[in-house]
Amino acid sequence: MDYYNSRSLTFSNANIVEGYTVAGPKENEGRYKGFFDLALADDMFGQNTFERAERKMFEHAIDGVIAKANLVNADINGIVGGDLLNQIVSTSFAARKYNAGFLGLYNACATFVESLIVGATLVSCGYDNVVCSAGSHFSTAERQYRYPLELGVLRSPVTQWTATGVGASIVSRNSNGKYPKITRATVGRVIDYGIMDVNNMGAAMAPSACDTLVAFFRENNAQPSDYDVIYTGDLGKLGSDILLDLTRQEGYDISKQQHDCGASLYWDEQQTYQGGSGAACSALVFNGVLLGRLRRGEYSKILLAGTGALMSPTTSFQGDSIPAITHLVEVCI
Amino acid sequence: MDYYNSRSLTFSNANIVEGYTVAGPKENEGRYKGFFDLALADDMFGQNTFERAERKMFEHAIDGVIAKANLVNADINGIVGGDLLNQIVSTSFAARKYNAGFLGLYNACATFVESLIVGATLVSCGYDNVVCSAGSHFSTAERQYRYPLELGVLRSPVTQWTATGVGASIVSRNSNGKYPKITRATVGRVIDYGIMDVNNMGAAMAPSACDTLVAFFRENNAQPSDYDVIYTGDLGKLGSDILLDLTRQEGYDISKQQHDCGASLYWDEQQTYQGGSGAACSALVFNGVLLGRLRRGEYSKILLAGTGALMSPTTSFQGDSIPAITHLVEVCI
Repeated sequence: MDYYNSRSLTFSNANIVEGYTVAGPKENEGRYKGFFDLALADDMFGQNTFERAERKMFEHAIDGVIAKANLVNADINGIVGGDLLNQIVSTSFAARKYNAGFLGLYNACATFVESLIVGATLVSCGYDNVVCSAGSHFSTAERQYRYPLELGVLRSPVTQWTATGVGASIVSRNSNGKYPKITRATVGRVIDYGIMDVNNMGAAMAPSACDTLVAFFRENNAQPSDYDVIYTGDLGKLGSDILLDLTRQEGYDISKQQHDCGASLYWDEQQTYQGGSGAACSALVFNGVLLGRLRRGEYSKILLAGTGALMSPTTSFQGDSIPAITHLVEVCI
Repeated sequence: MDYYNSRSLTFSNANIVEGYTVAGPKENEGRYKGFFDLALADDMFGQNTFERAERKMFEHAIDGVIAKANLVNADINGIVGGDLLNQIVSTSFAARKYNAGFLGLYNACATFVESLIVGATLVSCGYDNVVCSAGSHFSTAERQYRYPLELGVLRSPVTQWTATGVGASIVSRNSNGKYPKITRATVGRVIDYGIMDVNNMGAAMAPSACDTLVAFFRENNAQPSDYDVIYTGDLGKLGSDILLDLTRQEGYDISKQQHDCGASLYWDEQQTYQGGSGAACSALVFNGVLLGRLRRGEYSKILLAGTGALMSPTTSFQGDSIPAITHLVEVCI
């Protein structure tokens, strides 16, 4: 691999002061049961369509993270984030509730880490508080990207299960306490190894995860052993295996540190095959699990690498392969 | 209107060192004939689908702006931008060609100004050169958002015509010359006045344009008369009239300064009714027309307010109204 351009950024004062999660029923029956601020009993969330349920999850997560941080709407300068629906309507419609500026983002399942990077740049440019948010919903994504839910198609063993959930963080410029900070980031480039199987997202995304991780290590003179854990977004089990092989070929052994938000979200008995996928994976695991471990001192330095597959049904129908992207943040306390 | 949170940003060194435009055939027969770097003779651009043509327009615009700025790919740290297709596939697939980091953005037709704001934050955080890009294609947007092209539906007199084109700017941290600079920006909030008519985007977006312009003036103690021109994105003729009324009610008369990229793009004889719409409007007019006027000293201080309507066909089918957003940059030389 050739690295022409530095894609890394350094931030001096991007504090993650709070995180909040809304998880679907299946997600709260998984490995992180009890870690979420709100676990839905019903993935309709009292709404008459799945799309409106997803929107309400965003509203609830944004309200929740602002309240949990002891802030009010008037303290928030910006909301940044996105979701998997066409025209990122869940996030955009949820943002109507707030007076904060809104920057809509889309990098598929890498959107949560993208939102943390954009949030960190905004506080570096003078904003006080930015809400960074991303999420997904199984039922809206399934029917938009794949098949009608009523069809009940058999799923391939290499598939993953789109997670239902929304995670939101507040990144703040000034902090009156010791908070986890986004210290460095590497923006991903778009990598396409010609994978055509839309059921095998892990294989499409693993080369991209390798590319960004290796770029981060090289550009920052860092090593995997510098970190307590390295969480990838939603490579799943198969994709994680491929990633370990690829990074080893580049001279980095991340097998001791690497975990995958998606692969770890469900128990095997939940029959998600390769684990979870979707923008919710890294948003739920970071805000629900990792942020708490950082704040309690269980971790002091972690990497979060959000992975995304950038195709659409139209590009797949037109015979295009699947480009992927991985954004990475270093979070330290 | 109540303004709780400052949404404005100030940039000290965000130079727009170059701009490049690729325009469709109809766009180059309009009022800005001859202003574009590349005018397509055929909106298929040698491809076998309209979607691939749109992608190639992005590739060409990004290649073009890098070459025109006397830079090479290795100089570019980041590419930021988006388009109107589901999953912003035109921009994402085009970004495969480059080693630069990619942040995918979506705020509908406000995406070009969003990309300038994100580009300015990235150079403020240490990137040297960022390509900011957005565009749209009549034939891809029409069949995704409205009707099959073959159907030949009659258009309502309040409709606008989605412009075919891509514009790209390079925002640079260090400049060896005097370039137009992004000096201030206001990130838009999402405004929804309950407009339900998807053929009348101008009416849906005008309140949002008013909100961001007034926020910018108030937060920065600025006046319309401080500017040579104030270009809105794609309000069209009707939307522009509504905007002038709304801003007047807020105590700001912008009638002397205001122009609309979309409304000015075509001649009346081209039968686009209210003018152009689409992410291409502000990208084409800013890079093809305004940047040159700034560089030649014809303008010294302008505002560009990108306007976007954030609905999707799904939200409209489910009975939701049309939220809108407007992002604003101040560009001075």
